[in-house]
Amino acid sequence: MKNRTINFTPGPSQLYFTVEDHAKAAFKEGIPSLSHRSKQFEALYREVTVGLRALLGVPDNFHVLFTGSATEIWERIIQNLVERKSLHLVNGSFSKRFFEVAVQLNRNSEKIEAEPGTGFKGPVTVGDDVELIALTHNETSTGVSMPLSLVAALRKQYPDMLIAVDAVSSLPYPDFDYQSVDTVFFSVQKGFGLPAGLGVWLVNERCLAKANKLLNNNFSIGSYHTLPSLVQFESKFQTPETPNVLGIYLLGKVIGDMLRTGIHRIRKDTEYKAAILYQELNAHGIIKPFVKDTELQSKTVIVAESGAATKALSEQLLANGLQPGDGYGPGKATQLRFANFPTHAKEHFELLCDVIKQCQ
Amino acid sequence: MKNRTINFTPGPSQLYFTVEDHAKAAFKEGIPSLSHRSKQFEALYREVTVGLRALLGVPDNFHVLFTGSATEIWERIIQNLVERKSLHLVNGSFSKRFFEVAVQLNRNSEKIEAEPGTGFKGPVTVGDDVELIALTHNETSTGVSMPLSLVAALRKQYPDMLIAVDAVSSLPYPDFDYQSVDTVFFSVQKGFGLPAGLGVWLVNERCLAKANKLLNNNFSIGSYHTLPSLVQFESKFQTPETPNVLGIYLLGKVIGDMLRTGIHRIRKDTEYKAAILYQELNAHGIIKPFVKDTELQSKTVIVAESGAATKALSEQLLANGLQPGDGYGPGKATQLRFANFPTHAKEHFELLCDVIKQCQ
Repeated sequence: MKNRTINFTPGPSQLYFTVEDHAKAAFKEGIPSLSHRSKQFEALYREVTVGLRALLGVPDNFHVLFTGSATEIWERIIQNLVERKSLHLVNGSFSKRFFEVAVQLNRNSEKIEAEPGTGFKGPVTVGDDVELIALTHNETSTGVSMPLSLVAALRKQYPDMLIAVDAVSSLPYPDFDYQSVDTVFFSVQKGFGLPAGLGVWLVNERCLAKANKLLNNNFSIGSYHTLPSLVQFESKFQTPETPNVLGIYLLGKVIGDMLRTGIHRIRKDTEYKAAILYQELNAHGIIKPFVKDTELQSKTVIVAESGAATKALSEQLLANGLQPGDGYGPGKATQLRFANFPTHAKEHFELLCDVIKQCQ
Repeated sequence: MKNRTINFTPGPSQLYFTVEDHAKAAFKEGIPSLSHRSKQFEALYREVTVGLRALLGVPDNFHVLFTGSATEIWERIIQNLVERKSLHLVNGSFSKRFFEVAVQLNRNSEKIEAEPGTGFKGPVTVGDDVELIALTHNETSTGVSMPLSLVAALRKQYPDMLIAVDAVSSLPYPDFDYQSVDTVFFSVQKGFGLPAGLGVWLVNERCLAKANKLLNNNFSIGSYHTLPSLVQFESKFQTPETPNVLGIYLLGKVIGDMLRTGIHRIRKDTEYKAAILYQELNAHGIIKPFVKDTELQSKTVIVAESGAATKALSEQLLANGLQPGDGYGPGKATQLRFANFPTHAKEHFELLCDVIKQCQ
């Protein structure tokens, strides 16, 4: 590892450390040319499903579906689950794009917007005509996370509305209560440390019922990737189209590795690494956490307000083999982002803290 | 190669023989975690574009766009290019699915259907209200190909209609006249011999104009993968979403390899391999070509009507290290399919013919 740069960009991220070996094995096993209608493929799909349930505590009433990207899942959620109106809690570029997808699909959707670097934790009032509440658990652009207590509160207050949670840059870290959500999704190139090109979409039976209701009313919910189509193929552990078979194989293998490490350990390590980095930023003379409210500080994407020191810090990190992520959008010149994913070792974070400390 | 089975299934197919080495190089170069907003990624995208233009003769007025699959492209074509009606020439399961996508997207589309094992070569009459004619150059399920003269005739007869060509299981073989078509597409796991999970969509300016016209009329043409969105990102050699970066890298490398072999040689070899297999089938006592009309016989997916000999032939092929593709749908028990892609060597086809000859 000493000769290689450790990548802290929040996505695509540093590969999970076992991926290269798994990819070599995949070629030996003929995975890249495996038919998606074969028993072997069905076994790979099943492996991911069983593994994700064990790793994340996903209950049996949730389906595990594959798409090309999490961006695609934004579109599929709106197409399949929203006839007229979704409500989006927006606090950065990615939660905003989810909202914009709904507008592009001609829904009469609404957003509640928070200031950059802030987010949502208190009560939220939702209009009666909202069918789906779209939440972004971890806003990758700003490093703001949403307390799980807000998700639970929304479920209690609005039990008839569907709740969708974008967990693209937080899973496998968050321990969601799957009774409080109807659909959760992520892409594999962030916390799971895999090559990009695969989205994972978890949906419960309420979502499927909604999609079927729209379909029965002659409302177009898409073609090959409608929820009923995806779920029908999933019942045989297959996909409607020829999918990213290699990506599905690698995901299954990395989930297996994470199960061996244990989700408890992964979560504790994530919290430790986040704690030492925030501590360093809090104690620093110049560089500070961008997100001030500790309740909203993301554990998995940590944004430093580095101001005029941004260029110097970035150079010093690179000289130490640490590649920071640039700030996003308006923060590009004055912020640095640090992914804190399972592949990032405690030692990497300790080195990161040392370099930051020395940058005065 | 001696110890390995050669895969003749028409997709996912045998990998192009250089892919494994390219994948190893990709990991060394850090491609699987490369940012899709980096200069390096832009260089990979540009490499595919320049390479495809050189290999296939794609003119500059065509855009080169990426999706998750060719199945996705069916959906994107209907969403972006058809407001009310497309006409589909259907002669098998895949051309039929393209039509069904249009119906699922609530278009008032029509189809002209040919009997199994037959196709289209003569004049076709198209109603005035058709916006797009959907052609399947090579029907993977039945091994029926469409003469390029029909594409040219349709263009001449209906110059105002858009013409879409599904070339999923024929490219890079066909030498399309890009003046006669408006959009052509393929997926990488067939003729290009790559791991599945990437579709390539070629579209001209007429397609872009049509999509923009629909958009300006407040017609929803999708979200992140609308044509205007894809083309806007393509102008920077980027994609709207995080794409299958590894797949794009591998495609660029295989196109480079094919350019070194030369497209003329690839086409001549394809024709030689097809000729000896059809000759063998024509001369055989029991096993015959499923497609009788020589003008419609596919060069790239050759279907044998093996009847009661199917099981015996299949076993003999496997014993010789040759994996045939099963017949598709109703042909499953009585037909075998043989992909004839650039990765299949003339020697593989000569061995294939020998084994078939001995199966009497």
